[in-house]
Amino acid sequence: MLSFTETARCGGARAGEVRTPRGSFATPAFMPVGTRGAVRTLTSADLEDLGAAVVLANTYHLMLRPGAELIAERGGLHRFMDWSGHILTDSGGYQVMSLEPKLDDAGATFRSTYDGSTHTLTPERATEVQALLGSDIAMVLDVCPPLPSPRPVIEAAVDRTAAWAARARAAHRSIAPPSQLQFGIVQGGLEVDLRRTSAARTLEIGFDGYAIGGLSVGEERHERLEPLAATTEMLPADRPRYLMGVGDPLSLLEAVSAGVDMFDCVLPTRLARHGTVLTSEGRLNLANARFARDDGPLDPALANDPAGRWSRAYLRHLLMVGETAATRILTLHNLAWLFELMASTRVAIAQGRFEAHAAAIRAVWER
Amino acid sequence: MLSFTETARCGGARAGEVRTPRGSFATPAFMPVGTRGAVRTLTSADLEDLGAAVVLANTYHLMLRPGAELIAERGGLHRFMDWSGHILTDSGGYQVMSLEPKLDDAGATFRSTYDGSTHTLTPERATEVQALLGSDIAMVLDVCPPLPSPRPVIEAAVDRTAAWAARARAAHRSIAPPSQLQFGIVQGGLEVDLRRTSAARTLEIGFDGYAIGGLSVGEERHERLEPLAATTEMLPADRPRYLMGVGDPLSLLEAVSAGVDMFDCVLPTRLARHGTVLTSEGRLNLANARFARDDGPLDPALANDPAGRWSRAYLRHLLMVGETAATRILTLHNLAWLFELMASTRVAIAQGRFEAHAAAIRAVWER
Repeated sequence: MLSFTETARCGGARAGEVRTPRGSFATPAFMPVGTRGAVRTLTSADLEDLGAAVVLANTYHLMLRPGAELIAERGGLHRFMDWSGHILTDSGGYQVMSLEPKLDDAGATFRSTYDGSTHTLTPERATEVQALLGSDIAMVLDVCPPLPSPRPVIEAAVDRTAAWAARARAAHRSIAPPSQLQFGIVQGGLEVDLRRTSAARTLEIGFDGYAIGGLSVGEERHERLEPLAATTEMLPADRPRYLMGVGDPLSLLEAVSAGVDMFDCVLPTRLARHGTVLTSEGRLNLANARFARDDGPLDPALANDPAGRWSRAYLRHLLMVGETAATRILTLHNLAWLFELMASTRVAIAQGRFEAHAAAIRAVWER
Repeated sequence: MLSFTETARCGGARAGEVRTPRGSFATPAFMPVGTRGAVRTLTSADLEDLGAAVVLANTYHLMLRPGAELIAERGGLHRFMDWSGHILTDSGGYQVMSLEPKLDDAGATFRSTYDGSTHTLTPERATEVQALLGSDIAMVLDVCPPLPSPRPVIEAAVDRTAAWAARARAAHRSIAPPSQLQFGIVQGGLEVDLRRTSAARTLEIGFDGYAIGGLSVGEERHERLEPLAATTEMLPADRPRYLMGVGDPLSLLEAVSAGVDMFDCVLPTRLARHGTVLTSEGRLNLANARFARDDGPLDPALANDPAGRWSRAYLRHLLMVGETAATRILTLHNLAWLFELMASTRVAIAQGRFEAHAAAIRAVWER
């Protein structure tokens, strides 16, 4: 089946629909991160109320706690979470790379952050774990160097990512449920030629969709525009494009402008847990004393805000005394705000006014 | 207005309705504790979904953070929380007594647990703070000694509680909004004669309802039956009776049997935060490894359980990895379970089978 249909285009930005055996979702789409089988502070009922379409879950965490086999015995991650929307699982690579693993052509050997036990993640095992979890979209195991890294490090990452992608694709064909899609990942750091090489090698293998990895890992925002564009222009129009780990409004819109369809990031939920609120006027630090007597809602401009019935004064109070209800309400708000940004972006693309829309967002967020 | 109407009686147990200017609620009733203006982990929307009728809020905490005057400026605690159900505020005395205050006839001087600053709580100030909060039911400042305490300590507590109650009543008449009810508190430890003395002196002042304080503060469950009965038999039939700080199923039913109407306790919500679940089969410690592969709900016998869609295995996983969604779901469950216990108790009283109902609960919880 075709996994992506473009429904509108405006400059480099495109709106569309990703179709999977589970259903479909509109793009550009933001996917909240449900690290351990739950978006922090939220339930699947909350995600339904928010209208979330896709949730990301972390292979690294779930393979260690409670274990992929245990989840498979329970009927898979959808049933375990009681979530009937889409699930995209990462490969575990990103978390593992941060643990200074022993890395060779076979895979990555690392110590669990839970109990210090030793585990090996290979392209085949990462594929198997995701098959056990039963996500709708699985990712290949890749090598994602931090930025800046010397060019030889980036080159080696491109090579190993390509070799692993071929093995992950073969493993997926033999063991994954037919309903599960698999995305390849393009690496290459900020080097445009390496991005092109990596894209070509990933395309040669052939996947249901393509992710752009290795960005938002230490570089400045403006530095990623050229390598990002060099990647997306090589990707086929009939496959979804997913920029990994990006979630601030300016980066989202820049990437949409370069033709990206899907995003994930812990930023909106992590900000919420630290009392930072996304609003139509920019970020707002709720701990600021000026909100102690503010009877208004977090963002008067956000319609249908799940946090809208409570005042800034009340939510600030809950935050300051450490009531966890505050972090949940702020998480609901930040996700609702970001989903609304994506929805208004889709409408702007469909109505041929994406540039004006993006300019209005920039006017607030570049302040 | 009459503040209590008995609708059914079965032995010593009674079912009824407390009426206030805000509305009414059915008794016996359990009131969850919203210490700092929120029941831990929950929002007012959650309380509405649970069908909670009355929430308790703590004067001690709210007078220090964010401050009673700040809440009054916001339109009172109902508006601050966006909660249109009933609110009962304690007097702050119980928390203050645990801080080893300087205690004299005027009041209690103590250091704030938030910032070490010094504050004085008098019967008048406790009344004023509750008037500022605008609760539906205010409590007098009392002296609540721990058990066991020497008889002279209990006697002195009875004397000072009575003297303070008279001052609190006078203060309430002069400064509280007419819509706010005020309850007196009977002390007397486990001494039946002192309970009678305290009840008589409290009745002499005259309140909208009567609380039984100074129990569930260190004694065994069976020790409180006689002093409790000695108190309730002196209280007028047309006023609600509130046993403070009791929330375990056996104690609740024993107190209902002695004619008590209202209860509050942090137990069900605190247990939830530690992974202990109330069920029709008794307590269940969700951290136990035997639940790791348990696909059933927390309590199959609880209809309309807000936690019912998730399995024990999933909730245990969230609990073990420290996801705060777990503590919220378990809090919702424990409160739903306890509200259902109170509802079935009201029905049993109305149907003249309270003793059989209580015996069935005892058969599970005395194991």
